[in-house]
Amino acid sequence: MNTKELTWKEESRKKVFDSRVFSVYESYCKSPHDELGTFTILDAADWAIIVPVVQTAEGKKFVMVRQWRHGSQTMSLEFPGGVFEPGENPQDAAVRELREETGYKPGSIRKLGEFSPNPAIMANKVHFFLAEDLAAGSQNLDADEFVAVELVSIEAVNKGMGKPPYIHALMGSALALYLQQQR
Amino acid sequence: MNTKELTWKEESRKKVFDSRVFSVYESYCKSPHDELGTFTILDAADWAIIVPVVQTAEGKKFVMVRQWRHGSQTMSLEFPGGVFEPGENPQDAAVRELREETGYKPGSIRKLGEFSPNPAIMANKVHFFLAEDLAAGSQNLDADEFVAVELVSIEAVNKGMGKPPYIHALMGSALALYLQQQR
Repeated sequence: MNTKELTWKEESRKKVFDSRVFSVYESYCKSPHDELGTFTILDAADWAIIVPVVQTAEGKKFVMVRQWRHGSQTMSLEFPGGVFEPGENPQDAAVRELREETGYKPGSIRKLGEFSPNPAIMANKVHFFLAEDLAAGSQNLDADEFVAVELVSIEAVNKGMGKPPYIHALMGSALALYLQQQR
Repeated sequence: MNTKELTWKEESRKKVFDSRVFSVYESYCKSPHDELGTFTILDAADWAIIVPVVQTAEGKKFVMVRQWRHGSQTMSLEFPGGVFEPGENPQDAAVRELREETGYKPGSIRKLGEFSPNPAIMANKVHFFLAEDLAAGSQNLDADEFVAVELVSIEAVNKGMGKPPYIHALMGSALALYLQQQR
């Protein structure tokens, strides 16, 4: 089976719902066998997730943020991150979000990779960065943000993934990209 | 800062959009400081992602599926997976989806972990399984599914994550949970 025998072609799409966070489209497509199909697609802004690493007396630690998540209706311990502002460069967004959520300013930052959060239904992308040589500072949160900063050992994060409070799948993706660089 | 100072309380929610794949709700919440906020939440069925491992002459390989993804409008190389049927047990769903998409029937299967795909906005969960001792068989695809099965070395998947064709973030989560078990 070659790639052409797997490829659909979008003929058109129509917006069917809009909110502050995302828009929903119906996508009208033609299958590899020229049959018509309708698929529901969600579009939202791209965002960044930052893996911040600090050296401590007990070795390397991740800077993580504990916060309430409205989708899961639970607490979640995560790498910091946030949505790009219009026209903002991905790396600039990563530095800004890291500073706002944790106060840390990175001396060095580089891209680890890029994913679709869920390419089956979502059109946006999530960009992953490694932030090192961190200088501590103060959080700068929005009025409706309540975020606690914690330093967690790499081993604890690795062991904890897939169980509370490490419930955010995209933090597993971030960890996979961090470990990919450590080999 | 203790956990109570981070916790929101949902007062009510209202459905504002419905489709075959997901529903959208407005959630009306009270902040840790008793201020009101409105958040948009997406609910959909839970699903399973299966990490199938086969022994080959060249060592262990992952069984992966290459398919078109309508959200990203690209090809994607992924672990198999799919949505639970109503009332279906997660492990039964994992075995069924693995068989339908790849033809492989696992001699042993166990849970690796569970995540919210994106707890900021999504209410459903994704369950991860490791499938081993695989017996080959035939695919059983829906009429609108076009899926090519490939055996890929663990090293190639690890190196490729975060770059095409490994564009699906939740496959990075799956890899992190697989590697967590290998230590």
